[in-house]
Amino acid sequence: MKVGIVGLGLIGGSLAKAYKDADVTVFGIDKDDLITRFALMAEAIDERLDDNNMKDCDLILVAINPVEAVKWFRENAPQIGKDTIVIDCCGTKRTVCRACFDIADQYGLTYMGGHPMAGKERGGFKHSSAGLFWNAPFILVPKHHDDMELMCRVKEMIMLAGFGRIGITTSEEHDKVIAFTSQMPHIISNGFIKSETALDDSQMISAGSYQDFTRVAYLDEKMWTQLFMENRDFLSEEIRGLIGQLTRYEEALEAADPDRLMKLLAEGKACKTAVLKKCGPQQINGE
Amino acid sequence: MKVGIVGLGLIGGSLAKAYKDADVTVFGIDKDDLITRFALMAEAIDERLDDNNMKDCDLILVAINPVEAVKWFRENAPQIGKDTIVIDCCGTKRTVCRACFDIADQYGLTYMGGHPMAGKERGGFKHSSAGLFWNAPFILVPKHHDDMELMCRVKEMIMLAGFGRIGITTSEEHDKVIAFTSQMPHIISNGFIKSETALDDSQMISAGSYQDFTRVAYLDEKMWTQLFMENRDFLSEEIRGLIGQLTRYEEALEAADPDRLMKLLAEGKACKTAVLKKCGPQQINGE
Repeated sequence: MKVGIVGLGLIGGSLAKAYKDADVTVFGIDKDDLITRFALMAEAIDERLDDNNMKDCDLILVAINPVEAVKWFRENAPQIGKDTIVIDCCGTKRTVCRACFDIADQYGLTYMGGHPMAGKERGGFKHSSAGLFWNAPFILVPKHHDDMELMCRVKEMIMLAGFGRIGITTSEEHDKVIAFTSQMPHIISNGFIKSETALDDSQMISAGSYQDFTRVAYLDEKMWTQLFMENRDFLSEEIRGLIGQLTRYEEALEAADPDRLMKLLAEGKACKTAVLKKCGPQQINGE
Repeated sequence: MKVGIVGLGLIGGSLAKAYKDADVTVFGIDKDDLITRFALMAEAIDERLDDNNMKDCDLILVAINPVEAVKWFRENAPQIGKDTIVIDCCGTKRTVCRACFDIADQYGLTYMGGHPMAGKERGGFKHSSAGLFWNAPFILVPKHHDDMELMCRVKEMIMLAGFGRIGITTSEEHDKVIAFTSQMPHIISNGFIKSETALDDSQMISAGSYQDFTRVAYLDEKMWTQLFMENRDFLSEEIRGLIGQLTRYEEALEAADPDRLMKLLAEGKACKTAVLKKCGPQQINGE
């Protein structure tokens, strides 16, 4: 099997290393030539991905930001083989999938949206690792949900990189859920750390939940701005929802009303229980 | 050395087990006699704490909720030895310390406030473990900050339970910081999970930060209501501060202004860097 990887940052670099570990031939390319050369030297890729070997790829994973991913696909579509499956790895799916489904139709190519569900606070090839996606879900957004043969082929190729599960959804549902599960924690963490109290002796007088809530405050603001802007309808709604919830706790405190506060807390506890019951425990580490 | 432990829940039970592991004699008591008997059977305590052996204790740790802790100290003060050091383990310190400093003065006893900085989402003796406090800080709130001999003696006894560091502060500073580092994550997590999106396929389409942000949504609403109410001035201020921050991100999204959004994210990233520089990485697990 041969895999092409476009973009050798944290995600692309980790995919390359994982596939190399699985004895898959990897062709890779980064817009920064130094990174491509470094990946070659580190044997994270076998060869530079180019117009020649692109045709031989069974799978091409595009691990760059949404705007660049669409641009790359449009420019390289003529060189991509008809048997190759192209999957992007962008963190939002509506905009990218809409554009890429069109390009795929135009050139008679096979494309679907993808989102490998893992990450780290620090990006770049230097932080990539073969184990980043170990047991993580890989979310797929196919244009048609009835091509079982294609989905089985894709699943087989994806699982080789160490993923634990394949999730299949629509770009709309993906973006709605991701606004809540991933974008919100990044916004909250980034805003939370702005409290002046953080500069008091916060590391000593704290335990695990503080570590949890401040971990992703450090982020790549350029990448996240693009992802947040593409998802601003869903994300705005979640932020407004949380502001509403926080206001209720604050009002109960202001009113010095322990019964109201306890009711609010019991409601949240019941929601957590309902989520665990419906969705099961979430088992993935990293972000 | 002999330690008395009042309350054999998650905190008291874990302290008992940790001291037993360090070959310290442990006298323990829980208001639920079944728990006391269970702790005896499990050899987490050597004997039931009573009026007789209370006098022999070098250290008494009071691991019950704030209101009960003050009540226990007032009722038991006549039985406590003059050489015994009494430390409560409540999560807020102003109210408890004020009351207990008075009681200690009245009876000529040695008391200081304490807060072992670790925990778990699930409470009770059955979730206690000898390793809960491994490497965690134990925060102390003494009445006078100049009694080095006393502080050294306390430190020596505390460290036997596996703590990594002793932090010494005032009840005011403790409560201000704890509102931010621990109470806020619990409020946010409890409110965050109330989003209806949580019942979508949130476990599949998520990664580490979602796990982080929903972990402490499940909480003991009675205990936390008491802790939040005792700290409602500091906590309200932090909630209002976060609502203000979230509003700024939401407004940038509403205005479809990527530059403003990126600036907000860069500011949060800079705050995180400043905190790491000033306070160092936070190393404790659990909550």
